[in-house]
Amino acid sequence: MQKLYIVKIGGNVIDDAEATRHFLRKFASITGYKILVHGGGKVATQMAEKLGITAQMVDGRRITNEAMLGVVTMVYGGLVNKNLVARLQSLHVNAIGLTGADAGCILAKKRAVGAIDYGYAGDIVEVNAALIGSFIALDMVPVFAPLTYDVQGTLLNTNADTMAASLASALASVFETHLIYCFEKKGVLLKPEDDASVIPMLSKETYAYLKNEGIISKGMIPKLDNAFAAMQNGVNKVVICHAEEVDKVIGQGNQAIGTALTI
Amino acid sequence: MQKLYIVKIGGNVIDDAEATRHFLRKFASITGYKILVHGGGKVATQMAEKLGITAQMVDGRRITNEAMLGVVTMVYGGLVNKNLVARLQSLHVNAIGLTGADAGCILAKKRAVGAIDYGYAGDIVEVNAALIGSFIALDMVPVFAPLTYDVQGTLLNTNADTMAASLASALASVFETHLIYCFEKKGVLLKPEDDASVIPMLSKETYAYLKNEGIISKGMIPKLDNAFAAMQNGVNKVVICHAEEVDKVIGQGNQAIGTALTI
Repeated sequence: MQKLYIVKIGGNVIDDAEATRHFLRKFASITGYKILVHGGGKVATQMAEKLGITAQMVDGRRITNEAMLGVVTMVYGGLVNKNLVARLQSLHVNAIGLTGADAGCILAKKRAVGAIDYGYAGDIVEVNAALIGSFIALDMVPVFAPLTYDVQGTLLNTNADTMAASLASALASVFETHLIYCFEKKGVLLKPEDDASVIPMLSKETYAYLKNEGIISKGMIPKLDNAFAAMQNGVNKVVICHAEEVDKVIGQGNQAIGTALTI
Repeated sequence: MQKLYIVKIGGNVIDDAEATRHFLRKFASITGYKILVHGGGKVATQMAEKLGITAQMVDGRRITNEAMLGVVTMVYGGLVNKNLVARLQSLHVNAIGLTGADAGCILAKKRAVGAIDYGYAGDIVEVNAALIGSFIALDMVPVFAPLTYDVQGTLLNTNADTMAASLASALASVFETHLIYCFEKKGVLLKPEDDASVIPMLSKETYAYLKNEGIISKGMIPKLDNAFAAMQNGVNKVVICHAEEVDKVIGQGNQAIGTALTI
């Protein structure tokens, strides 16, 4: 099987023009098949504020009412996605910007209302791996915005970490998939402010322990839950690392970069 | 050669939810290969106003400063494009939303500053017909937002009528291309307010005469200039019609629907 790198880039990197520029250059240098999945949280929040719409968050997930769905569709699907695509094109990466709706790549359903009503939030139902494989076969590099759609034709806001994990899982039947979560830290840290405290290998047991102790918390929890689920779904390798080290993770030997998960 | 219908839908239809719904149902009913190109003027202008950005127009073309480029990227590339795609998917049309930047479909260059500085306005340099043909071969229906990009990776605002004409011209070497401009009138009218005054056939000579007399004016002029250029570039048929009649234009015999151009 051929390798496929699925790289997720977080909102904190996207929000920083210089960090994005660095990241894109590193991403462009990766040879072989690759997919980029991006978030874009703060830009959407800022745009919503300018438009007088208030963003509400629960457990790191945005509550998406109709007005906010319009904002994330504009910002994720338009502003962020198309700028990344155009810039990657200028770096000789044949990027193609996609949401789940495009060519029916990723079908979802509106999250059922439980204790919390997440509004227009999408839970992924099916990833069309064959179709995404056909883009890759055409030497394109899919760049996914965190939006999906349902059978009624409604767009849905979807967590970018989950989307990356779902893509990696679905494509694991066709490729040797490597899932790389890039963000503004050097990996999963024992001490949040100390980049030297990166945990090089994280097992499910250690994760459970660190979560229980409150050492791993907040936004890292859904990211790691997704990451471990992907490992169990046949994804070959999952690494969490700094956006500037994405090129070092790929093609390295056993050199420790970021946090690699083990199950 | 197989037929390919390139349908351009104007901003006035996009702005009207009911008209859009009707149009999409008609567009979905077209059998065979097809491409949709959309505008979306008013939505962008309204969004700009909400954000405190003033839209400036010259000869029906928007002056695109950096702030306005952000707005059209959001609105055209995100809000309008992705909603059309999701809704077409629900109508069993395998739509894929694209800008010129995606997969490098349509390369442009920033318009040279002459008497007017149009800002981030793109003039099309090259349409990758083979690539667009490969989407069509995969049974996808490209849905183009009126945005292109340049070699520096800058997105550019591009007139949707021009984009539709350029697509039709470029694809004329591979398909028998039919270019259909849909808007809120029944065709090119002799009297602007009288839908019964549709000109069924319009030659280049008659067009020149009517333009000179001021009977054809404003937004119709760039549209018709584009349309006649497309005819001269090998496009098989160009029709200007009401959005609700798009299905009647296709597959009809000699029944007169809208305005057909002749050269």
